[in-house]
Amino acid sequence: MNMHQTLERIRHKEPLVQCITNVVTINDCANLLLACGARPTMAQYPWEVEEAVGYADALVCNLGAIENLEAMIRAGRRANALGIPVVFDPVGAGSTSLRRQGVATFLDAVHVHAIRGNASEIRALAGKESSGKGVDVGRADAITAASYEEALALARDLALHLGTVIAVSGEVDLVCDGRRSALLTCGCATMARITGSGCMLTTLLGACCAVEKDPFLATTAGMGLMGTCGEIAERKRLSHRTGNATFRNDLIDAFYNLEEEDLKGGAGYVLVEG
Amino acid sequence: MNMHQTLERIRHKEPLVQCITNVVTINDCANLLLACGARPTMAQYPWEVEEAVGYADALVCNLGAIENLEAMIRAGRRANALGIPVVFDPVGAGSTSLRRQGVATFLDAVHVHAIRGNASEIRALAGKESSGKGVDVGRADAITAASYEEALALARDLALHLGTVIAVSGEVDLVCDGRRSALLTCGCATMARITGSGCMLTTLLGACCAVEKDPFLATTAGMGLMGTCGEIAERKRLSHRTGNATFRNDLIDAFYNLEEEDLKGGAGYVLVEG
Amino acid sequence: MNMHQTLERIRHKEPLVQCITNVVTINDCANLLLACGARPTMAQYPWEVEEAVGYADALVCNLGAIENLEAMIRAGRRANALGIPVVFDPVGAGSTSLRRQGVATFLDAVHVHAIRGNASEIRALAGKESSGKGVDVGRADAITAASYEEALALARDLALHLGTVIAVSGEVDLVCDGRRSALLTCGCATMARITGSGCMLTTLLGACCAVEKDPFLATTAGMGLMGTCGEIAERKRLSHRTGNATFRNDLIDAFYNLEEEDLKGGAGYVLVEG
Repeated sequence: MNMHQTLERIRHKEPLVQCITNVVTINDCANLLLACGARPTMAQYPWEVEEAVGYADALVCNLGAIENLEAMIRAGRRANALGIPVVFDPVGAGSTSLRRQGVATFLDAVHVHAIRGNASEIRALAGKESSGKGVDVGRADAITAASYEEALALARDLALHLGTVIAVSGEVDLVCDGRRSALLTCGCATMARITGSGCMLTTLLGACCAVEKDPFLATTAGMGLMGTCGEIAERKRLSHRTGNATFRNDLIDAFYNLEEEDLKGGAGYVLVEG
Repeated sequence: MNMHQTLERIRHKEPLVQCITNVVTINDCANLLLACGARPTMAQYPWEVEEAVGYADALVCNLGAIENLEAMIRAGRRANALGIPVVFDPVGAGSTSLRRQGVATFLDAVHVHAIRGNASEIRALAGKESSGKGVDVGRADAITAASYEEALALARDLALHLGTVIAVSGEVDLVCDGRRSALLTCGCATMARITGSGCMLTTLLGACCAVEKDPFLATTAGMGLMGTCGEIAERKRLSHRTGNATFRNDLIDAFYNLEEEDLKGGAGYVLVEG
Repeated sequence: MNMHQTLERIRHKEPLVQCITNVVTINDCANLLLACGARPTMAQYPWEVEEAVGYADALVCNLGAIENLEAMIRAGRRANALGIPVVFDPVGAGSTSLRRQGVATFLDAVHVHAIRGNASEIRALAGKESSGKGVDVGRADAITAASYEEALALARDLALHLGTVIAVSGEVDLVCDGRRSALLTCGCATMARITGSGCMLTTLLGACCAVEKDPFLATTAGMGLMGTCGEIAERKRLSHRTGNATFRNDLIDAFYNLEEEDLKGGAGYVLVEG
């Protein structure tokens, strides 16, 4: 994976990323795509998504928009037919039976290139008990330096079962396509103190998959870019003594101004196995 | 009421606050909860809210999401059955007959622990003529140092009639549970120049009611915390010559960084009667 | 057109602007109105918009809320009956057949005082081929100093055909009511790097039309005000090295603090013909 190359490709190609996503963070997702140099389109009406996806370079579906499941399935099937990459965010996957059922229905109908969730959401996808309530990771599920091996095994099985890339974000990030795996330790705790850091990350992965054919490399690069920008924003928050609202803006701004230099500067440690 | 104690309890307990709220300010409400140390969940689909509320520590319903009235009623009834506090924001209550009817239907079906609105909205709830158009307080209704006595009488009657805490925010804030009353004069005029200061305040009251059993004390503390943070953000706005958009971020940031010291420093005058 | 006079009238009259607009940028639109001194009301439920519009001083309909087309038509007809100005934003007009049909249905049912779009959207309205995909202007359609004459002819024909003011925003802005035309060259490229600069501009035009009877003068003033504030925000972005998220806040803040002096200071060149 090459973060700088992926970013440069996004800036050059300006991919159109079609998002069917929740209303809580939809504005942030659109501004993040624009910050990267991609172009957002958030059309989500079931009667137009199939046509809209025909112009798109990637499709991002976010389970937070559970009321739009039909639109996600229509758009996803069309994207599959056209060979457009699909990235899926199973927001709150285990928190209600409606969402568990929604995930199953969506993944039965649509082949996805990558799935990004927190550890509780990915556990729920794998049919495991999860301690997540609402949309946050449950404490018992969080992946740490001490517990990543079990999480990696789970991600590997799920990746093989679904034929997709599984990305788990948290204190330690995992990416696995069943064959290759990566661990990333970049980012900062403040990212969990804004709404939408997960949604924005998944949206970014859509832009990455639009410009990088190998979804494992695209996903790993996207996770690294988000972690790096999180660290840049965190340094700004600490030096200016701001809080989470300003951090959110600084995080998006970091993508706008990101240079190769920033990506070299020890912005988190990346290990790629296998 | 003890603002610092309530804040510390939120930070310690990290209550999960389920919000069924309008799309205009939903992102700000989620980030405000995160700034305080609470956890937001904004699931609002009618078919999942009952299950979602089962994990929540408080439920906040906002009439601005009038199209989700059914979800509010389902979630509210479930919260009542489970003994989870419910806070209600009658946004634009008097502005259309649909909303007047919606308020009546909701309050018939659900017992609420606290209602927070502006003076026009609270007048509408009490069946009085209100000069509010849209979602703002009407000039004739605004409570001032000169007119608070009549407003207090109205709030007291309404609190007794509905068996709830009534909180009226404005230049002067009132809180009344029928027996006890409080006047707060903290905050700043810029709060009326951002969308969502009312919605954010009501959402905050959800977090306060989740950690403080007495809804009168919880509500009064929440009103004081919001006013204090409004003053902190206003000082920043004046010294940096920013405007309402940056003020909104500074207001949320203020919660993120709030310390006991800030709450002692004359952050508004509070009088508790009876 | 007189930018300062229009702004002062908004600040003095505090018009209530009813918006039926998309969820992506609805918060920014509300905060922009508040920054100007106007009052937003975003009620969009079909069953209440007719009553709500009865209190409004202007109505803004945004095709990005295509799922609310019925509400737009109900509200628009009511506004027409009451003589309240209606401003329309044909977001992504040419991107799907549903939107093309939606525009036709809306414009058949409702008389609008002004339409504001990018060059691709306006071309789609005129039944011309457009290179716009999604919600952005297509490169081939963008109006430049070299190509404005053809665009002006198209805008003039459309304005005469629909009996409305046509405003095309881009590197060069055009305003035409069929008889009079204006070119504006204010603004900055960063405006295209945030979501919602178009939506916010259309919303602002609603406030301008609420206080200025001549929709051509109102629209031209609004375009000039937005361009001026864009330049103010851009200077701030460059001096503080921020990105698009902070730029968005600075743009709204600029309206909050805008003074007559700022409008005199060469904030873009305006040519009014005929």
